[in-house]
Amino acid sequence: MIANDDVVDIWTIVVAAGSGSRFGGPKQFFDLRGERVVDRSVRIAAAHSAGVVVVLSAEVLEETGPSRLTPGSSTRVVVVVGSDTRSGSVREGLAAVPAEATVILVHDGARPLATDEVYERVLLAVAAGADAVVPVVPVTDTIRRRSGGVVDRADLVAIQTPQGFRAEALRAAHAAADDATDDATLVEAGGGRVVLVDGDSDNMKITDPSDLEIARLLLARRGETP
Amino acid sequence: MIANDDVVDIWTIVVAAGSGSRFGGPKQFFDLRGERVVDRSVRIAAAHSAGVVVVLSAEVLEETGPSRLTPGSSTRVVVVVGSDTRSGSVREGLAAVPAEATVILVHDGARPLATDEVYERVLLAVAAGADAVVPVVPVTDTIRRRSGGVVDRADLVAIQTPQGFRAEALRAAHAAADDATDDATLVEAGGGRVVLVDGDSDNMKITDPSDLEIARLLLARRGETP
Repeated sequence: MIANDDVVDIWTIVVAAGSGSRFGGPKQFFDLRGERVVDRSVRIAAAHSAGVVVVLSAEVLEETGPSRLTPGSSTRVVVVVGSDTRSGSVREGLAAVPAEATVILVHDGARPLATDEVYERVLLAVAAGADAVVPVVPVTDTIRRRSGGVVDRADLVAIQTPQGFRAEALRAAHAAADDATDDATLVEAGGGRVVLVDGDSDNMKITDPSDLEIARLLLARRGETP
Repeated sequence: MIANDDVVDIWTIVVAAGSGSRFGGPKQFFDLRGERVVDRSVRIAAAHSAGVVVVLSAEVLEETGPSRLTPGSSTRVVVVVGSDTRSGSVREGLAAVPAEATVILVHDGARPLATDEVYERVLLAVAAGADAVVPVVPVTDTIRRRSGGVVDRADLVAIQTPQGFRAEALRAAHAAADDATDDATLVEAGGGRVVLVDGDSDNMKITDPSDLEIARLLLARRGETP
């Protein structure tokens, strides 16, 4: 367990700057049992952080405002406008993280089902000395290259968030690079030590409307009331 | 559309020989809205085939019998006992497919949501000259190698079933090889021409109890009554 005293130097960047054009609206703002997807993501991040930087698109910020992004605790919440790319949005978020933060988490706003346990595993691995920590789950599908040949799935894992970083390592990686799908890959490319920890099969990314229904089902199974 | 007259030479092997030890029972025999998972898989296969060979484990066959595996049409249904490995079970199934079959489909018994459209796409591609046809969907997760480095997911696809084969190509591949995760890979290794067609994101494989709940949800969305 990470005690409350320990979160003083932990900040989380919640990236929710996507336009959501894939299904007619920013998916992070759809309702999940009475709460917007991103609000839930921020609320859980806030429980593990001294502060949360929420990265939104300019359109969303204009339309909905940051008002609901207040988890009602002592955690500071800062809202910034993102960029066209995920990496660009992380950099905008990084710029708003106070210099005294020593640990920075990066979390997808579209992953509202991240559990406290996943946060704990990531934070413990950073505390133990990793430069970057990535929660992963096994790949259950059989995977093939379009160009031919099955890929050995025993060597493959699917990446989740929150990812955790020694703050200096993340800042250095983003200062050196232009773009990447994945922040840990940036750190690794710079010679940083990346550690994998167990993610959670329920910690899904909401990418289409059926994912929202599945997320509602998974929350109901946890016994959470709406 | 594949007309009824055209299915005369098409046989489907439904592989359901797994012990299902992952969650305390053969997953193919769990209830999905009043119908066992495997029964639904067989019923849909039967609509596209002159005959279906269902491959079961000896334990399951002894316990439940083949009685419910009768789709109530003119399609012939043959039940055989499988093997410890998937490839072995396919070979047992192949041995029961009549020599006059010119097209053989291989389908996972644990994929009860395969649509008619996926069957049609696979069969049309076989008719157009492929040795093996694999329905695939894009990989939506970010994938990493345990040993380090993100894998370019644009080059990756997740493999589904039904897979379709020119009967001779499948028989030759299984005669030559001992084992494989994937039948199309066997055909490819033997120099056969493999064609990828679009699968369906709903065409999931039931691997744990939450998958069953998701499958029920997806069926409800299609407007199918239990």
